[in-house]
Amino acid sequence: MKHVPVHVSLITVIEIVAILVGALSGFVEARRKRMDIVGVFTVAFIAAFGGGTLRDILLDKRPLFWVMHQEYAILIFVLALLATPLMRTVKQIISERVIVVADAIGLGLFAVAGASQALAANMPIFIASMMGVITGIFGGVLRDIVCNEVPMVFRDGKPYAICAFFGAWMYIGLQYTDVSDDFALWTSATSITLLRLLTWKFDMHIHYHKQP
Amino acid sequence: MKHVPVHVSLITVIEIVAILVGALSGFVEARRKRMDIVGVFTVAFIAAFGGGTLRDILLDKRPLFWVMHQEYAILIFVLALLATPLMRTVKQIISERVIVVADAIGLGLFAVAGASQALAANMPIFIASMMGVITGIFGGVLRDIVCNEVPMVFRDGKPYAICAFFGAWMYIGLQYTDVSDDFALWTSATSITLLRLLTWKFDMHIHYHKQP
Amino acid sequence: MKHVPVHVSLITVIEIVAILVGALSGFVEARRKRMDIVGVFTVAFIAAFGGGTLRDILLDKRPLFWVMHQEYAILIFVLALLATPLMRTVKQIISERVIVVADAIGLGLFAVAGASQALAANMPIFIASMMGVITGIFGGVLRDIVCNEVPMVFRDGKPYAICAFFGAWMYIGLQYTDVSDDFALWTSATSITLLRLLTWKFDMHIHYHKQP
Repeated sequence: MKHVPVHVSLITVIEIVAILVGALSGFVEARRKRMDIVGVFTVAFIAAFGGGTLRDILLDKRPLFWVMHQEYAILIFVLALLATPLMRTVKQIISERVIVVADAIGLGLFAVAGASQALAANMPIFIASMMGVITGIFGGVLRDIVCNEVPMVFRDGKPYAICAFFGAWMYIGLQYTDVSDDFALWTSATSITLLRLLTWKFDMHIHYHKQP
Repeated sequence: MKHVPVHVSLITVIEIVAILVGALSGFVEARRKRMDIVGVFTVAFIAAFGGGTLRDILLDKRPLFWVMHQEYAILIFVLALLATPLMRTVKQIISERVIVVADAIGLGLFAVAGASQALAANMPIFIASMMGVITGIFGGVLRDIVCNEVPMVFRDGKPYAICAFFGAWMYIGLQYTDVSDDFALWTSATSITLLRLLTWKFDMHIHYHKQP
Repeated sequence: MKHVPVHVSLITVIEIVAILVGALSGFVEARRKRMDIVGVFTVAFIAAFGGGTLRDILLDKRPLFWVMHQEYAILIFVLALLATPLMRTVKQIISERVIVVADAIGLGLFAVAGASQALAANMPIFIASMMGVITGIFGGVLRDIVCNEVPMVFRDGKPYAICAFFGAWMYIGLQYTDVSDDFALWTSATSITLLRLLTWKFDMHIHYHKQP
């Protein structure tokens, strides 16, 4: 029990990292579309919170995460105001490698959290795995829809959603063992992150369509 | 009462047909956009369940149909994995005629089910007719939005939503008569199907814009 | 208390004006995309009610406004049927100036109503200001998404959402004073309307991206 504060703050740090990386992807996309400040904020917000929000609407869970934690919305708001100068600095300081790692960490956390909340709401296990993937990827999907693009995660053939899917099933499978929920959560989230980084490192693609 | 099992299994068969046809339309659209396996599954899923899901979110009804019946989600998942080889076979075996008929059956069932559930939730009758149409067409609308297209049902001028609209009103009107709910449901759904097939057969269009 | 009927009917008039202006923007956009009657009705409906509907879904508030007042849905339905001849007449009778004024009135009313309902649902104040803006602008955002466009309000650099944002904060700020809620509501809504008209009059833009 005395470890709870440490535990909570680690989750909080990962949460902030995941949200910032989601928002960053929104900033980049919104700027590519030459959006104004309203668009940049909204797209960043949707990219950061869209997946979890859709999951909560489907599960009918309220209040939404970002409604309970307005500090995250305020953080994205401030970042949106600073996005133009910040983007240059971010690009100078933070390499693509760092962004991919942070994004992979976020994917792991979001997907496992999504599956976990679906199981807590007594969803069937296949639905729980879908809720994990939805939480992990639909921020990006909704970001792309608002930006009038076919969602990247649906067409680039990279195993992104699939890493989330496997990790969600790992978490679900571990529920049938004696391991603690904490252990299940962390190993599953870490597995997604490592799997995602491996597939990125080796630039793996899933060839689905027959080659011409 | 002893007829219930038969009745249920007929509805179940129609349901599966309607879901499969919805998913098929998603497969076709996702492949046209050269989506990967994640996109093909998601778009097929949205095409099959999007209309009913939107209706349930608007009415605040939970759990969602596909959450209660994960077997349908698993079915679409398996079909998505098989979609590339299956598509060739489907095109060889099943003619366009069969797909149109199955789709018309699905439209009738979905639209009447949507109106019925809205009335059961004490919605006003015009709203109930809208819920019927939403259930019938928004799977396709959401599919087209995710695929970055202007929804087909909003621009082709074919009386598709309109058939659903008339059938929903027929069902609502029959509530004010002495006929059983079962009779109202089946005659209305069948009327939508026949009306849709008639308008397809004669390639009817509604000319809305003034001709230049 | 004896003034309530007058008060209600003033709100009702403004509501109808705001809904009509929202629907009108949908008619224009849907016709530009050469949509059929189903598309014209749906896009007008989404433009008129999308913002409030999204807010209510996020707050989990039911029944939705347009579900309780089916007369508004019927009104838009009738207008959609008449849209082609009506559009010419509307353009002859009503100048762009009148539409901008009506739209500014609607923006003020919707934004303040959104913030007010979020506060009533015990939302934190930053979230309440966001709900105000969402109510004010997401009808147009969803309209543009359905019409396969990048939402105008995210890219034209005009202070539209920003007027709503300031007015929502004005309303929130007035909650900490002794003024009546009615006074807070009307002054905030009026401020948004005037601010919007001022920025329109002087064709103000917010330059967000660095000029090349």
